[in-house]
Parts: sequence; structure tokens; C-alpha cells
Amino acid sequence: MDLRQTLQAARVAARRLASLTGPERGNLLGDFASALCEPAAKAAVLAANARDMGAAREEEKAGRLGSALVKRLSLDEDKLATTVDGIRQLARMPELLGRTLTHRVLDHGLILKRQSVPLGVLGVVFEARPDALVQITSLAWKSGNAVALKGGREAAESNRALTKVAHGVLAKHGIDPAAMVLLEARAEVDSLLGTDDLVEMVVARGSSEFIRYVRSHTRIPVMAHADGICHLYLHSSADPAVAARVAVDAKCSYPAACNAMETLLWDAGAGAALDACVRALAERQVELRGCAETCKRHPHMKVAVEEDWRTEYGALILSIRQVPDLAAALAHIAQYGSRHTDAIVATDAEAASRFLAEVDAACVFHNASTRFSDGYRFGLGAEVGISTDKLHARGPVGVEGLLSYRWLLYGRGQCTTDYGPQGRHYIHKDLPID
Amino acid sequence: MDLRQTLQAARVAARRLASLTGPERGNLLGDFASALCEPAAKAAVLAANARDMGAAREEEKAGRLGSALVKRLSLDEDKLATTVDGIRQLARMPELLGRTLTHRVLDHGLILKRQSVPLGVLGVVFEARPDALVQITSLAWKSGNAVALKGGREAAESNRALTKVAHGVLAKHGIDPAAMVLLEARAEVDSLLGTDDLVEMVVARGSSEFIRYVRSHTRIPVMAHADGICHLYLHSSADPAVAARVAVDAKCSYPAACNAMETLLWDAGAGAALDACVRALAERQVELRGCAETCKRHPHMKVAVEEDWRTEYGALILSIRQVPDLAAALAHIAQYGSRHTDAIVATDAEAASRFLAEVDAACVFHNASTRFSDGYRFGLGAEVGISTDKLHARGPVGVEGLLSYRWLLYGRGQCTTDYGPQGRHYIHKDLPID
Repeated sequence: MDLRQTLQAARVAARRLASLTGPERGNLLGDFASALCEPAAKAAVLAANARDMGAAREEEKAGRLGSALVKRLSLDEDKLATTVDGIRQLARMPELLGRTLTHRVLDHGLILKRQSVPLGVLGVVFEARPDALVQITSLAWKSGNAVALKGGREAAESNRALTKVAHGVLAKHGIDPAAMVLLEARAEVDSLLGTDDLVEMVVARGSSEFIRYVRSHTRIPVMAHADGICHLYLHSSADPAVAARVAVDAKCSYPAACNAMETLLWDAGAGAALDACVRALAERQVELRGCAETCKRHPHMKVAVEEDWRTEYGALILSIRQVPDLAAALAHIAQYGSRHTDAIVATDAEAASRFLAEVDAACVFHNASTRFSDGYRFGLGAEVGISTDKLHARGPVGVEGLLSYRWLLYGRGQCTTDYGPQGRHYIHKDLPID
Repeated sequence: MDLRQTLQAARVAARRLASLTGPERGNLLGDFASALCEPAAKAAVLAANARDMGAAREEEKAGRLGSALVKRLSLDEDKLATTVDGIRQLARMPELLGRTLTHRVLDHGLILKRQSVPLGVLGVVFEARPDALVQITSLAWKSGNAVALKGGREAAESNRALTKVAHGVLAKHGIDPAAMVLLEARAEVDSLLGTDDLVEMVVARGSSEFIRYVRSHTRIPVMAHADGICHLYLHSSADPAVAARVAVDAKCSYPAACNAMETLLWDAGAGAALDACVRALAERQVELRGCAETCKRHPHMKVAVEEDWRTEYGALILSIRQVPDLAAALAHIAQYGSRHTDAIVATDAEAASRFLAEVDAACVFHNASTRFSDGYRFGLGAEVGISTDKLHARGPVGVEGLLSYRWLLYGRGQCTTDYGPQGRHYIHKDLPID
């Protein structure tokens, strides 16, 4: 079956997925969670991931794969349990399909409703991260969308095992497994990008370079989950203990994540906070690279070069730069940031409020780790990605980012020519939403 | 000044526009309305339009321009008054910038807010319709965005005169007129499409062919306002009087509009309703083109060919096709429709409800004219276009379609590693929205 036929079948299957009632949808997701916990399925998934990991570790030794990729690839019992917990949370979340978003009287007997609907078929291209396949599939089902997935090749065996489980669950619920398509060849991505009459949205997760490639090769709307060059700025009013805690979490809790900090900016007046951070980060074996001013204060540090300010290390490396003031911090972030997540540590409320108002990023935090930038932590249940775009959905994208809406108008034979200066007038009164 | 510099200046000016308070923004819009009513300005605008119209009528006579285009180009006292009324309505509408969209407790002392923000700089390419320039500019100001506009070349003089008025109003309010850029050369559109680091969204209004061109030549997200191939379906339960009223409004009230009906579908059991429509439309000099079955009943009619089902006439021409049942009507609309606006005339509630549930279009109506598909009529104040996309905004697009949002998190030094099975738990409780 060629890709177009596959996607045609996915479109048909999507309609069935979309027509599930809320409780039916909850059961579908609940069964997905249960199926992943069933001993034989779980063993098969973990064994498949072990094979992927074995091959990846060989590649890593040979210097062909980075350690960040290998960490993201791993799917152990704990990560699987967390992922399954995410599906159950999503199952319990209120049904978002068919919701009335606007309910307005245009005139007596002329009622307008805006109603949430699925998009149709989604194409998702993502890194070698098997737990992402599960999250994306669950979100697609929760939002009534079919999905064509292409994961990183390093996760091929894991993805195949997980897809087998998902297909079994769909079949059990009378839904054509065509609703979830696993693509395995890189060439299929290029074919997918050409199907703008069948696919409603492409979610592209990867490097800025990859996102540019996708955008240049498709007419399908793209939701990009690109680089995260996240900053933490220590204002002169920063509390050193808070600064150190937040910096360690932002850098060390999962350095391979896109919401990890890559650059620490410090105000000339925030020396004590910087020192606390440097001490705490050095204890955690973080490689620190400082600008000239930073190295003057901490002479043991490597010297950062221009390229460092543009780099997403995805590893225990951090660049550090002194800035003369808040305005300079804002300018640095505007120039080098990726509009993902940036945070300020400050006790001065005015400085914090200016930082939150002026940084043009999806997520801007005060006295909190950049790592909070996450669909699960934000209470969205799960995430299909963290959008660095401004349109449609921004930041962590949950179910709502996979929905569209339609306008429905209920009349009694009204005509637009009935209205006007000499005729009837619109009432435009909003009614309560059900 | 080259286009990149122009757009850089627009970005800076956009920040000032975005920072206006609600009342300041209302005054800015109110002054735009007043300035367009000021006798000298109004005379200049109408005179400019008269020059555009003179040239266009020559082109029309020579067969180089269609009558639909000439109608859209015209800006008389009445159309200007309606447009000015639209600005005043927009001025009075509540401020939508800086609104809290989500307000959630993640944990004690860890508060998440989602806040509406402008997009930045918009690029808008639209047809030769001077009133559209005014609507788009007003919506850009109301949403705090700078805008680069390229209208159809036939409206060049009108657009220049209107832009002069708008620039004067911006300057009076201390906003750099760089916030509103009028592009005049076609080549500038291609340059604009290459500025994905400066422009956040391109609104493209035009033919499907033009939209495809735009999408293939830019990495900037595109909001498309493409063809409207709108259908009216007469169900066997249709009331003939309602059918005729709605059909006449949908076809004749403004045939050049994208929300005008292009194809009438009738159920074999809706013969009386069809007859009523044919009678009423013939009285209004509409050229009717029927399928074989339709022509059997109305032998005087021209015969429609396959191409007719795909055509947006934009004129007093209508194609008519008999369909065996509701399912066939849905199939015809799925195949030939442009997902813009489709309507059913029916007294049978079940048929109407199935039609509204199954037609995949931005707007789906029951017993109402397709011409209601409009931002002003829907109560949005004005529209930047009618989006035939599913992402970001669908159907008539008002201020909300020109906004994005940011996630703001207020903490006290929290770290993600504080949370987990052995640690703290997220509360995820939504608070009332201000």
C-alpha cells in the first residue's frame, strides 16, 4: 500500500475515532495504559528497547551518537510507568471534543455556535524517544485524530513494539488500526510532506535546521518543536540559595531535555548568586564556560566563545555571561534565545515583572526552574511537543493544540439582506456555554 | 530603505503599539474612524478610488478585468460609512491583549498564567479591495500588531490615500508610522515571504492557486483565505419559501464575495423547493447551469459540465445538481467544496443535524444564507479574512486570530526534582480568571 492510500485509510479511521463518546474514548485510553502493563507486552517492549539501546551504545562508543540521544532513547520500567500514568491522567481528563466554545445570539432565532473538532490526520516526526510515541498517540486518540508517526531510526524496534500494542487496543475497540501509522523510512517523511490534501498538520520535533528543512518542503502547516536555548538570568537582587537550587535543577535534572538551561546570565551585582551557582554546578560535574568577566571572578573556568551562546549542549555543559543590567540580559536573550523558556531569579518584583513582560518566549518564569516547561507539569496531561511557534499553540502542547473548531449557525430562513440601517439589527449577545 | 530594514522598524513600532492601554487603543481606533470622516481626507480617498475605478472600468471594457473585481474595488460613501462603523465597533470591543487565559495553581506558591499577546509583525496580501485595507489595519491595531500590507494593484491609489490617513493617526498618537507598511510592488511580496525571522504570520487572500504559491515559497506560517465554493443543499424536507429566500440571498446579495453560493444541490424529493429557487433566481437574472436530472425538470437551463462543480463564479451564475440523498450531498461537498461555508435547507431536524455534524467546513449552516459567514455578522467586529485553514483560526478571523499567548510561571525557587512519587505532588487547580 503506498503512503497516499495509507493516509486515505487513516482519514476514514479518524472519523470513527472522532465519533467516540467521552466515556468510550476514556476506555480506549485506559485500555492502552493497561495493555502496556500486561506482562507479555511490557516484556516485548522492554526487550525491543534493550535491542535499540544495545545498538545505540555501540554507536556511542564509536563516537557516532551523542550521550543525550542515548539517554532519550532509553525506556526502562520507571519511564514506562510514568508514561502509562500519563495515559491514565489523559483518560480521566474531560472530553474536549464537541465542546461549545462560543454560543451567541445573532438575532432572535439565529444562533451561532463555535464547536471544537479534531483536525483529521496528523503527521508527527520526532526524535528517537519511545515514550514520545506513546504520549503522541494518546494525545491523538484523546483529540480524535489519526496520526502518522516517524520516530528517530535508533528507536525503530521500540516503536514497532509499542505500535503493535496500540494497534491491538484500537482493533479491540472496533477502530481500524489504520488510524495509527508507523512510518519507518526517511523517504516516507518527504512523501508525507507532499500530502497537503490529506494531512492537516505536521508536528516537527528536532533541530532548527531540520525544522527549516520541513518548512521549506511542505505546504502543510507545521508546528515546530525546535531547539531550546533556555536562559536563567540572575538579577542583582537574586537570592543566592534560590539561584543555586534553580540553576542545578535547570541544568542537571535532565540535560538532554529541550527545557534545560544552556546559558546562565548574571548581573554584575549578582556575584554572590553566581558564586553559589558555580559552586553547586561544579559539584555536579557541570563543565562551565565563562565570558571574560565571569572568568575574572572564576579563573579556573574555560573561556566561552561566541558559538557557545548559540549552542544547545543537551549535556552537562553551561555557558555563563555577565551582563551589565536587565536591559542587556533582555538583549542577549532576544539575540541568542530560541523563544522557548527563559527564567529570572530576583527578589526585586519590578525587575521580575519587566523580565516577564519583555522576554518574547513561549514560557517566561520567575524564581522557578526552566524544566517546569512541560505539558505534564503544566497540567495538560501530556504533550505532543513544546511549540516554539507563535501560531495555533505555543509552549507545551496538549490536547487543545490538536483541535480545530467549526462555526455552526441555526436559523429559520434568515437572509443577510434583512439586516442593515433600514432593516433588522444584530443582537450579538453571548449565551452561557454548556 | 530595503524591506528588511522596513520590517525591522515595524517590529520596533509594534512594541509601542502593543504597550498601549485599552483606553489608548480605543482612542487610536476612534481617531482612525474620525480621520476617515474628516471632509478633506474623505474627499481624497474617494477621489483616489474614483481614479482606480476609472482605470479598472477601462480594463473591464477591454475584457482584461472581471466585473466581480471591479465591484470589490469600488469604495463609495456608503461602503466607507459601513467600514468606519466597523472601526468604531472594534474600538468599543473589550481589550483582548494581556488577558489571562489560564490561571492555575501547580503547587502552593507556584502559579501558572497563560496570557494573550500580539504576534508581532503580520504580512497581509489581499485582493483589490480598499475597505479590506481599513479592516485589516484596524484589526492589527486592536491586536497590537504591526502590519505590512500588499493590496491588489488595481487599488493602488485608494490604498495610498487610506494609508496616508492611517499614518497621520499613528503619528498623532506618538506611534511610529513604520507600524503600518504599504507594499506596492509584486516583487516585494516575494521578498516578504523570505523574512521568516521578522514576520510572524502571512495572511494570504486569493485564489487556491495563489495560496499554493505562497505556501510553497515561505517558511512563515500562512493563514489562507482561499476560494469559497459554497453549497446550499435542499433536503427533501426543505420548505420551498425558505429555500427560495435563502438561495436568492446566498447567490445575489453580493455574488463577488467568497461566501456566496456557487452550487445548489437538491434532493430528488425536493422538487418543489428547487422549482421555487429556480423561479426566484431566474427573476434575478441568474444564469443557471443544471445537471442532466435538473435539466429534465427545467429544460430551458444550460447544461453544467464537470468544471462547473469546481468553479467559484463570483458572478450571477449558479450550478445546480440533483443528488439521490443526503449522503450523496455530503460526498459532493467533500469532493468539490472548499471547506468554507455550506448550508442545508430542511425542516427535518435529524437531516439537519447530520449535515451539521458531517460537513467538514469552517462554517456549516441550517436554514440560513451562506452570506452570514462574516466577521461583522458573527459579532467579531471585523475580519482579516475567512480562513479556510483548520489551524490557529478557522472561518471569519477577527482580533483573536491575530493573537498568540505566553505561559508565565511565578515561583519561590521550586525545582522539578522536588516532585515525584516520593516527593511533592502537583495540585493542578484552576483559579478564576480575572
